[in-house]
Amino acid sequence: MIKPYDDKYFMQKALQEAEEAYAKGEIPVGAVIVIDDKIIARAHNLTELLNDVTAHAEMQAITAAANFLGGKYLQNCTLYVTLEPCQMCAGALYWSQISKIVYGARDEERGCINLQTKLHPKTKLEGGILAEEASSLMKRFFIEKRNLN
Amino acid sequence: MIKPYDDKYFMQKALQEAEEAYAKGEIPVGAVIVIDDKIIARAHNLTELLNDVTAHAEMQAITAAANFLGGKYLQNCTLYVTLEPCQMCAGALYWSQISKIVYGARDEERGCINLQTKLHPKTKLEGGILAEEASSLMKRFFIEKRNLN
Repeated sequence: MIKPYDDKYFMQKALQEAEEAYAKGEIPVGAVIVIDDKIIARAHNLTELLNDVTAHAEMQAITAAANFLGGKYLQNCTLYVTLEPCQMCAGALYWSQISKIVYGARDEERGCINLQTKLHPKTKLEGGILAEEASSLMKRFFIEKRNLN
Repeated sequence: MIKPYDDKYFMQKALQEAEEAYAKGEIPVGAVIVIDDKIIARAHNLTELLNDVTAHAEMQAITAAANFLGGKYLQNCTLYVTLEPCQMCAGALYWSQISKIVYGARDEERGCINLQTKLHPKTKLEGGILAEEASSLMKRFFIEKRNLN
């Protein structure tokens, strides 16, 4: 049976957010948060525009989702994010008690897996959904940036 | 020689912020960020009021200090915070490249030391300044909360 709303569907929405970041000259990372197959938060990296290291896509999505739900815990929610979360974002996701995190591309240097950031026991972590697309958007961004400087 | 602006002076200011959090029914943690003996950001935990797990004192102080400085890196800045930072806040401080972190009380369970959150190579970490005061404020909060429930 065809499932219209699957991980690829929602990661595609996160990728659209990443492309918006790209268009603004931001490191292209996007995120959406989903509950019952419904997107309740969309965000993309805005660290340059806001001059704020805390303005990662995930952080903004967590705040927006909590605002939508009227409570700070993201139980039964899934975060889709184009890049493996960093320590800060994984640490925020720990506090949120989110049910599931799905990332696209790995971040071996600064991602939460190799840096062993502790996730909440209620949180499942999966990765590799549209990894190639997320990764090639990042590569394109850094090549273009190098050529401009 | 008497140094009017020392670690205790600034931690006292962070403790005043923690007391403001306490008065609002928030877990009492406060923070200030200092550059050249000048306080450029003050904040206290607002996770309950804002319904937002990301609203820790340090996160707000980082955003406020970057706003004051007009840039996202907190070089030559020192953060004073009454409680050892968690993974999220230490992860944000990593991105900020802050020069120094001074905390009051240890947080053995959820603090960045035992959870081994990676700090930026430029960042020094010190602790134990007015630890007793910070710790007793926390204890008072949790005892009072238990008695109310």
